[in-house]
Amino acid sequence: MLEIIYPLVSVDVALFCVDAERLQVLVVKRAHEPAARQWALPGGILKPHLDKSLEAAARRVLAHKVSVELPLVDEVCTFSGPDRDPRGWSVSVLFYALLPRDKINALVRNKVEALEWSNASAPGHRLAFDHDHQLAAAVKKLRTKVEAGKLPLHLLSEKFTLTQLQRTVETILGRSLDKSSFRRQLKSSSDLVELDEYERGTQRPAQLFRASEGFSF
Amino acid sequence: MLEIIYPLVSVDVALFCVDAERLQVLVVKRAHEPAARQWALPGGILKPHLDKSLEAAARRVLAHKVSVELPLVDEVCTFSGPDRDPRGWSVSVLFYALLPRDKINALVRNKVEALEWSNASAPGHRLAFDHDHQLAAAVKKLRTKVEAGKLPLHLLSEKFTLTQLQRTVETILGRSLDKSSFRRQLKSSSDLVELDEYERGTQRPAQLFRASEGFSF
Repeated sequence: MLEIIYPLVSVDVALFCVDAERLQVLVVKRAHEPAARQWALPGGILKPHLDKSLEAAARRVLAHKVSVELPLVDEVCTFSGPDRDPRGWSVSVLFYALLPRDKINALVRNKVEALEWSNASAPGHRLAFDHDHQLAAAVKKLRTKVEAGKLPLHLLSEKFTLTQLQRTVETILGRSLDKSSFRRQLKSSSDLVELDEYERGTQRPAQLFRASEGFSF
Repeated sequence: MLEIIYPLVSVDVALFCVDAERLQVLVVKRAHEPAARQWALPGGILKPHLDKSLEAAARRVLAHKVSVELPLVDEVCTFSGPDRDPRGWSVSVLFYALLPRDKINALVRNKVEALEWSNASAPGHRLAFDHDHQLAAAVKKLRTKVEAGKLPLHLLSEKFTLTQLQRTVETILGRSLDKSSFRRQLKSSSDLVELDEYERGTQRPAQLFRASEGFSF
């Protein structure tokens, strides 16, 4: 008779935000074994009796860390094999999620696990398991989308200026862009809605924009 | 005590080739339950005692169908949930693979399961489980890569003409391309190596090319 060994299935999530011109990722100091007291991406074991899908599992994991509903939770890829988790043959499905800039304080603190925003390109801690590779894969996915012309509007507040958008794109790409050609590209985009409102408290108030209804990243 | 219900983990593969100016996908008539006698993408349950990774599982599944080593087996995304497989909560990790044009006859026939090349854009059979969605996701991934300028050289024979390359790209994109601008794009590509050989048996012999060593799709 064929013995079926069931692999462990979990989800891990790279939750990004852009703050102070830096792409940040949420890391958590694990309270329990395996890898207790090590920093890692937030994650958890799939719970078939609770989760309707892997994406639902990723959203459940994040709901324990962030008190707002996330506008985007999307799959990156899987990590799998006999050696990546001491509990045995495991599959981790990696997701990434984007947090709007004005929600960066919506973290759900608890006494068991520490949470921290860390530089996504050079995290301050070595991450547990294969999470350094996972983070690199998630950053690459985000960059590739932005390189291909997708606008990372989910990282901005509900209303934003074009300068804030350009800074966010530049932060993700890690290089500066020519202002006039960037604005020219935006002209043909159906993702932006011009508002009849202007930024407050600045000397030369800039026009505000929001994402269009049909916007997708 | 928390009861852990283990999900079923399997891999499914969309194996593509381009033949007679058509993007084709390999489908198999399932011999066993569930979905016996229905057509589906080739797939199988992960075997942790045999497979070093999910990609290795996908290659194992393909090795039973095709007698050549495949140059590319890459992940598309996962499909998951309680209802997609009658055996219970399941995760399928979908891969796609590319078969060179001159290897299209390297199918491993057996008396149990029928194998067939089917039009990838409009398969001749309704596929079992959620494999119609899986196929659509795999075709989209392939198209997106080619739209982004990647060259699908793995679908061609080892040596090919630029006209064969253009036809293959056009077949995947489903539209014709301007010959001179296509050739101009190729000029700057480091993926192609010009050979000092010409196609045989044609009135105006065309120069042959091969993929460069460092080529990746």
